[in-house]
Amino acid sequence: MSQISDPSSITLVVFDVDGVFTDGRFLLGPQGEEYKTFHTRDGHGVKSVLASGRQVAIISGRKAQAVDHRMAELGVEHVFQGCTDKQAVLTALLDRLAISPQNVAFMGDDLPDLEVMRSVGLPVTVADGAPEIRAMARIVTKAPGGHGAVREFCDMLIGNAEP
Amino acid sequence: MSQISDPSSITLVVFDVDGVFTDGRFLLGPQGEEYKTFHTRDGHGVKSVLASGRQVAIISGRKAQAVDHRMAELGVEHVFQGCTDKQAVLTALLDRLAISPQNVAFMGDDLPDLEVMRSVGLPVTVADGAPEIRAMARIVTKAPGGHGAVREFCDMLIGNAEP
Amino acid sequence: MSQISDPSSITLVVFDVDGVFTDGRFLLGPQGEEYKTFHTRDGHGVKSVLASGRQVAIISGRKAQAVDHRMAELGVEHVFQGCTDKQAVLTALLDRLAISPQNVAFMGDDLPDLEVMRSVGLPVTVADGAPEIRAMARIVTKAPGGHGAVREFCDMLIGNAEP
Amino acid sequence: MSQISDPSSITLVVFDVDGVFTDGRFLLGPQGEEYKTFHTRDGHGVKSVLASGRQVAIISGRKAQAVDHRMAELGVEHVFQGCTDKQAVLTALLDRLAISPQNVAFMGDDLPDLEVMRSVGLPVTVADGAPEIRAMARIVTKAPGGHGAVREFCDMLIGNAEP
Repeated sequence: MSQISDPSSITLVVFDVDGVFTDGRFLLGPQGEEYKTFHTRDGHGVKSVLASGRQVAIISGRKAQAVDHRMAELGVEHVFQGCTDKQAVLTALLDRLAISPQNVAFMGDDLPDLEVMRSVGLPVTVADGAPEIRAMARIVTKAPGGHGAVREFCDMLIGNAEP
Repeated sequence: MSQISDPSSITLVVFDVDGVFTDGRFLLGPQGEEYKTFHTRDGHGVKSVLASGRQVAIISGRKAQAVDHRMAELGVEHVFQGCTDKQAVLTALLDRLAISPQNVAFMGDDLPDLEVMRSVGLPVTVADGAPEIRAMARIVTKAPGGHGAVREFCDMLIGNAEP
Repeated sequence: MSQISDPSSITLVVFDVDGVFTDGRFLLGPQGEEYKTFHTRDGHGVKSVLASGRQVAIISGRKAQAVDHRMAELGVEHVFQGCTDKQAVLTALLDRLAISPQNVAFMGDDLPDLEVMRSVGLPVTVADGAPEIRAMARIVTKAPGGHGAVREFCDMLIGNAEP
Repeated sequence: MSQISDPSSITLVVFDVDGVFTDGRFLLGPQGEEYKTFHTRDGHGVKSVLASGRQVAIISGRKAQAVDHRMAELGVEHVFQGCTDKQAVLTALLDRLAISPQNVAFMGDDLPDLEVMRSVGLPVTVADGAPEIRAMARIVTKAPGGHGAVREFCDMLIGNAEP
């Protein structure tokens, strides 16, 4: 499960946020303000993917300002939140970037990611992804979401994975 | 433990919050303001239960504004917090909704839930529920509270459970 | 390790906070404001001890307003924070309450608790207490700090422990 | 791995923050404000190292005000954050303090620490450090970052380690 047959074919990496960058949990305060926990090592992974010349996008069902701040910090340009139809968002992005779905990796964890993951060349999920997602993903990371899964996949893609 | 003999008989699902939606822990700030950690996947479960035509209610001993925000986001209409007598609150709700206790599932985790769980048709608890609660519950989820237990039970009810 | 020979002899229960009510970790914000994570089930335990007629006190090396809020909520009257000399604080409290050290349980987790734990009748610690503390404690809970250890000890004292 | 051949030769201990004092995760709020989780027991370790007459420094790639507050509380004088070139920062510090790299311990966890760890007498990492870092470290703590790893190393250095 840890081999990518042709990493160089992947020119765009798309991530869901909750359950992938995070463990699926988020903190809510008295005014409904949302806080999210990110992992430093995931950040280094995303930066490496960007440095390799690939593009990176975020397509998330939820919407939280903390995600904008984190992705700006990492240099991720394409950030889509509050997406009820992830497939439509991805299709529009691929049109704009002139990238074929075959050259896309999508890392998701739950049912709202199922359709979009079926449409891309490299569907990836986390150790604790929903059963339907794990069943169809080409790569399942050893780490669960929020505990280095993003970094693990980025390292695989860059060829930096632990043997 | 993972079979519900007659899921269609359950028309109202009632959840405790702390120890069920959360792992029982909460964050307190300098002014005593309370933050709670929720799980995205639990949210999808609650939405599925609502989409199946069932009603959903919250009956919690603690009181935190974060819970109001989260439940509003999920579309949960019946939210009762700061309840010292959970049985009285449930009885009043069942009267108002004209639902029989036999058609109610209650998911709790600790001693303040014991009486009310005895009164309903389907008492449910989490892997790390108090011993007295686990002993009397008809369903004990594999997941502990705050780590997908709500989703696990919702999937069972909807018939979406992992075999 | 889970038997208290004479629970009725204990009339005052004193708790350290960090590493006992919490897992030893705390959250710091940009202005140095401190947030602490408490467990609902520990709260029920403390309330049961108070309801049994025993007194409860907090003696903590750190100082955080969140602790004042939590203890006020639980009805804990004797709250001492920022204590560099825990022994002096306990001695003064015992004088004022006219309680003998033999009738005191102290639940601590780390070296600053060592002296004061040696002075009381029932020294208690958590599964992940410091080695020196575990070596001298009469009771070591199965749960680590912040994960129900306070509740576990309270249940033992009240006679509510899981057999 | 748990033996330091000549602890007295170490006169300066330098720590990375994320992944060492923390588990690598941090909390982001709506305005991008950053919160970090610290461990009380790590704090006692740092204080012991300072009390032993050694100097302590922080060299971190990220930048968060919470770190300034925590280190001020512990009495750590040399705090460098937002360091893109950790080696340059360390070299300047060693010049100023007139300390040789041979007398320095550096505790890091990820690739940005690799160069600087190669330059010091005692490179130390955490149980969950990156593979390249674990491979070259002279000491790997049993605890992962954020769960007492700092304390574990400080106890080793002071000669207070569990046998």
